[in-house]
Amino acid sequence: MTELPARVSIREVGPRDGLQNEDPVPTEAKIRLLDALPRTGIRRIEAVSFVHPKAIPQMADADEVWSGSSHDPAVRYSALVPNSRGARRALAAGFTEIEVVVSASDTHNRKNVNRSTDESLDDIAELISLLHGENARVEVIVATSFGCPYEGDVAPARVASIVDRVVADGADRVAFGDTTGMATPRRVTELVTAVRDRQPDIPMLLHFHNTRGTGLANILTAMQLGVTEFDASIGGLGGCPYAPGATGNVATEEVVHMLHDMGIETGIDLDALVEVAALAQDIVGKELPSGVLRAGPRYRTIPA
Amino acid sequence: MTELPARVSIREVGPRDGLQNEDPVPTEAKIRLLDALPRTGIRRIEAVSFVHPKAIPQMADADEVWSGSSHDPAVRYSALVPNSRGARRALAAGFTEIEVVVSASDTHNRKNVNRSTDESLDDIAELISLLHGENARVEVIVATSFGCPYEGDVAPARVASIVDRVVADGADRVAFGDTTGMATPRRVTELVTAVRDRQPDIPMLLHFHNTRGTGLANILTAMQLGVTEFDASIGGLGGCPYAPGATGNVATEEVVHMLHDMGIETGIDLDALVEVAALAQDIVGKELPSGVLRAGPRYRTIPA
Repeated sequence: MTELPARVSIREVGPRDGLQNEDPVPTEAKIRLLDALPRTGIRRIEAVSFVHPKAIPQMADADEVWSGSSHDPAVRYSALVPNSRGARRALAAGFTEIEVVVSASDTHNRKNVNRSTDESLDDIAELISLLHGENARVEVIVATSFGCPYEGDVAPARVASIVDRVVADGADRVAFGDTTGMATPRRVTELVTAVRDRQPDIPMLLHFHNTRGTGLANILTAMQLGVTEFDASIGGLGGCPYAPGATGNVATEEVVHMLHDMGIETGIDLDALVEVAALAQDIVGKELPSGVLRAGPRYRTIPA
Repeated sequence: MTELPARVSIREVGPRDGLQNEDPVPTEAKIRLLDALPRTGIRRIEAVSFVHPKAIPQMADADEVWSGSSHDPAVRYSALVPNSRGARRALAAGFTEIEVVVSASDTHNRKNVNRSTDESLDDIAELISLLHGENARVEVIVATSFGCPYEGDVAPARVASIVDRVVADGADRVAFGDTTGMATPRRVTELVTAVRDRQPDIPMLLHFHNTRGTGLANILTAMQLGVTEFDASIGGLGGCPYAPGATGNVATEEVVHMLHDMGIETGIDLDALVEVAALAQDIVGKELPSGVLRAGPRYRTIPA
């Protein structure tokens, strides 16, 4: 096997990306989940998004969730914002790590925000200025990086040129979202290579969905290419908005389970993580798609 | 990415391994599934097992299923047998590719057949003689090769010494079963390397379960090590006998979907395969765990 990193950094996105794509749950439940996660050793959490409550009712209580939760000083919390109004709310709430999103696919971006990719990139340039002025760091998430549900394939060169643009505009980090689970090891290799060739220094995180079963194969491929930062969602919270009933985000415990068995450190306690996945399942009140939650880690043997 | 094979051979195990681990379905439905599969371009099918009907009622009608189905001359059909009585039934039915099973884990083997691994290997030596005398080829499937639900880890050296033994006894091929989904890329690397070091020439097939999400990552790893033969089950038919509700066999259409997108040929028509996965789902009357069945192949776009 190709050489692999000794350590990987997982960002937990269940509280935001996960719950945003599930039926709404009570504020108190969101706080319980947010407060349980740091006890597993997770050190990066996407906590909330500051979006318009009519657009995304699941996040209408973002301020209450955040002010009501314990903020573990060992954890890096981030918030997603769609615009300057959201950015100001995030700053007021005390966030210093902010995510903004643009879709590599023009059609997908228009469906989401009724603007072209280029228009959104202009908005992001302004957001970066605003946020840097308040000493916040900005990650630009490029959605549909591995394919668009409307347009199909997305050229890696297009994504790489979006990265060129946002790096020039001051982005501190980039993330690539496999929004509808269209990534395969080939697409991961092509995209990571295309971006690294032009922007070798920008910190890069990958966000995979397991919609078509390739989630962990994609993470393996990315690790073989030297990528060490991944999003994952506890229990696989989230689902896929384009295929009702389909799996969305890769489940954090499936990622950690595979990595630990391969000797790759994450700093996370897998047994504690599985307990929080069970909590997440209780909170949404339906079976989550995580195999490690259902079957348990491979080292849990049955008494003969 | 490490160099990958240009072509991979998939053996479809849904009709046998899949249906054997589901609630019984009518003979007519099994015949329909068997007859639909060759039209996808699949060229290897594990068709039935000749086991005692009291032990496995799902396969009680093996003779009727086989005699009632069309045998595509382009397809290599195989049958699994537990003993000489089953072997004679398989030979009488016309099979020339026969599978026999032994578990690498002594505890698992005793639970299955009330004999030690070594005792089963003695039986297999006799079965190979019997079958070779009738011009049949024999594949020895080593179950729990990547871990045992009772014993936990299984040493690759133990599996390799089982391979030494069955090769000495005349086995034509070996297969390694990830019986309860305990394989990870590390375990695959260790096992394939250990076996290849000692038996570089024996044809080798890998059989993965997706119980903990690692199915396609394991196949990717094995391909990077030069393995080109894999089992898969249409729709993910099968389930895991040790974790009720959990995923069992990797779904054929998820494997083919990933391989084709990576430019690896299988000779299979993915769209036709997804149609047969839908048929398999109809037959068992419950949702199967295949993401590609649920969400469709990545190239099926939504009209904008």
